[in-house]
Amino acid sequence: MPTVNLVDESAANAKVRAIFDDIKATKKIERVPDYWRALAAHPEHLEKCWTQAKTIMKPGKLDLLIKEIIALAVSITNSCRYCINAHTAACQKLGLTAEQYGELLEVVGLYNQFNKMADALQVEPDVLPKPWT
Amino acid sequence: MPTVNLVDESAANAKVRAIFDDIKATKKIERVPDYWRALAAHPEHLEKCWTQAKTIMKPGKLDLLIKEIIALAVSITNSCRYCINAHTAACQKLGLTAEQYGELLEVVGLYNQFNKMADALQVEPDVLPKPWT
Amino acid sequence: MPTVNLVDESAANAKVRAIFDDIKATKKIERVPDYWRALAAHPEHLEKCWTQAKTIMKPGKLDLLIKEIIALAVSITNSCRYCINAHTAACQKLGLTAEQYGELLEVVGLYNQFNKMADALQVEPDVLPKPWT
Amino acid sequence: MPTVNLVDESAANAKVRAIFDDIKATKKIERVPDYWRALAAHPEHLEKCWTQAKTIMKPGKLDLLIKEIIALAVSITNSCRYCINAHTAACQKLGLTAEQYGELLEVVGLYNQFNKMADALQVEPDVLPKPWT
Amino acid sequence: MPTVNLVDESAANAKVRAIFDDIKATKKIERVPDYWRALAAHPEHLEKCWTQAKTIMKPGKLDLLIKEIIALAVSITNSCRYCINAHTAACQKLGLTAEQYGELLEVVGLYNQFNKMADALQVEPDVLPKPWT
Amino acid sequence: MPTVNLVDESAANAKVRAIFDDIKATKKIERVPDYWRALAAHPEHLEKCWTQAKTIMKPGKLDLLIKEIIALAVSITNSCRYCINAHTAACQKLGLTAEQYGELLEVVGLYNQFNKMADALQVEPDVLPKPWT
Repeated sequence: MPTVNLVDESAANAKVRAIFDDIKATKKIERVPDYWRALAAHPEHLEKCWTQAKTIMKPGKLDLLIKEIIALAVSITNSCRYCINAHTAACQKLGLTAEQYGELLEVVGLYNQFNKMADALQVEPDVLPKPWT
Repeated sequence: MPTVNLVDESAANAKVRAIFDDIKATKKIERVPDYWRALAAHPEHLEKCWTQAKTIMKPGKLDLLIKEIIALAVSITNSCRYCINAHTAACQKLGLTAEQYGELLEVVGLYNQFNKMADALQVEPDVLPKPWT
Repeated sequence: MPTVNLVDESAANAKVRAIFDDIKATKKIERVPDYWRALAAHPEHLEKCWTQAKTIMKPGKLDLLIKEIIALAVSITNSCRYCINAHTAACQKLGLTAEQYGELLEVVGLYNQFNKMADALQVEPDVLPKPWT
Repeated sequence: MPTVNLVDESAANAKVRAIFDDIKATKKIERVPDYWRALAAHPEHLEKCWTQAKTIMKPGKLDLLIKEIIALAVSITNSCRYCINAHTAACQKLGLTAEQYGELLEVVGLYNQFNKMADALQVEPDVLPKPWT
Repeated sequence: MPTVNLVDESAANAKVRAIFDDIKATKKIERVPDYWRALAAHPEHLEKCWTQAKTIMKPGKLDLLIKEIIALAVSITNSCRYCINAHTAACQKLGLTAEQYGELLEVVGLYNQFNKMADALQVEPDVLPKPWT
Repeated sequence: MPTVNLVDESAANAKVRAIFDDIKATKKIERVPDYWRALAAHPEHLEKCWTQAKTIMKPGKLDLLIKEIIALAVSITNSCRYCINAHTAACQKLGLTAEQYGELLEVVGLYNQFNKMADALQVEPDVLPKPWT
């Protein structure tokens, strides 16, 4: 059960309703996801989070599918149930195929394993990036 | 300091040397990274891990740069120092630009934040993928 | 489903019942929370854990609400569903307002984001505490 | 070694320099911490992050010390070395005493332990907050 | 709800069915656990994962119960609900007693606490293993 | 650099010195590890932690090596550098061989991988323990 009351689209004040409308228009969806309805319990926090998400999650030097793939890899590694569902759905909608999803799982699994083995073995970094210029 | 002795390329037995040669040829590098030299303390474990990595980290339905981007997103989320360095370097070598790297950091940061806020608010999944068929 | 049988208040042996009574009296609650009923499957572990919690979670140099706020920040960062619920409830009972809860979420979200970006960028500590004397 | 070149205060472009000046003025410090110098490799990301931090980390319904205590509890739970140092220093500067710091450690330790035991025992939430109205 | 369709034992293709049969024979169980039925959505990934698990989770220099105890300690620390259930059940089947399980919980709890306190205090390693020869 | 001054064995007050002596006698070591010297900055916290550790980390229904193996598996999964070193050393001192250590790494690696794949696939628990009676 959410720790706050989810804000109904109809009951929202003007400011929140404008953000809700923008969320639906931007994401091309019919209803506001519950995550955003929960954030709306604190309208200013909602505004900051939505501005942040909208600015970041748009095509840039990385396309939107790659950004959603990164979001999914992070959400799996953090074991966030809500976000795993939402970003798997988002990747799917953007065209990620079943085979590509299978490969994504393989890579996520592999490095969750290797990260911990590198820590266990206490190996010092020896393959280093050159700072970009 | 590593918890095991790193195996020298020259001192390795025939089996390990063959794997070391394959690592260098596959990755097109001059020396064996210390992670693999540490794993070589247990030759059978080295063999399993290298086979696993080689099979997964090759171009497939996802190209190699996307796989390295996933590996980096996982390594950052797990805070693995060795792997953050190695996969940042790998992404760079495969052509990730400074601007793309900046966007990757934004997305990784955003979802580490949102994952925890979704957990805090205890919102139940309502945006669900349709299982692929 | 719990991995152990939750111990009923009525069915508990004398030692466990005394701890249960102390939990209810200390926390000013009517029934023993299921976490403690699960720990009671191992009475000595229950005793150690309760003594530890009772000694730590009392007003000291930090007041109880600040301690519960810390407990909630930790539980969110660890994504512990049981504890997020219990410590959100505890903060609320001690007077945390809706606005304060909103600010708590903002700070928890911000540093889950910044922690990972600092790790990603591999910046060495340069803002250091002076050990207290 | 950082994955990007840290931007020098003198070498920064006008936009970055203005942010650097604001960081120093807001935090009342003489030099820009390396975390912000690293973010400056991507000036727009720097701007977003600084605006976000400045808006959140100011006295509100929670005072600044409580916000820094939350930041420290999160950073410890995430094991972020850079941030543990920076937020321990910040708490100290805002007046957290040695005794209060000791109590903070106790609470952070206790709930890192209890979070995992609650997960281990698979207890369902039974102590629930009432959504704030 | 799983993100993929769980593969039915009867509907599986010949390759998957052979793996399913091997899983049941090796684990001496009547039905294939849902984790493996989910992996079967990607038959080659299933094959790699099962080969890996079968090779590792057999008696070796460590006996099987100790390996399952390690699996459980890892799963609790990662808060993986599916795996906590499965490995608690596996330990139980291999003879772990209620008292031993209680001690396991104590140790897992203790080091989740101490790990974070060592990080908080920023103590450098001074108790070091000597690499095995 | 530690966030507190490490307490010197010679400079400690009587209470702390008694605990230091008990640590050395119990662990059969010549000097007090820095973790305990850091905790000694808060003598009452030191006392609680040492009592807790001493009570738990003694042979019981699980022998001491198995307890140290659990401690190491937890510390690796939490990526705690101090504790990985200390518990690898402790396992080694209690007789864990190089081959056994290799198998431990394999199991820890495997379940860090599988934990995240089970979360990714959102499989519900279907292999359940029967609560011990």
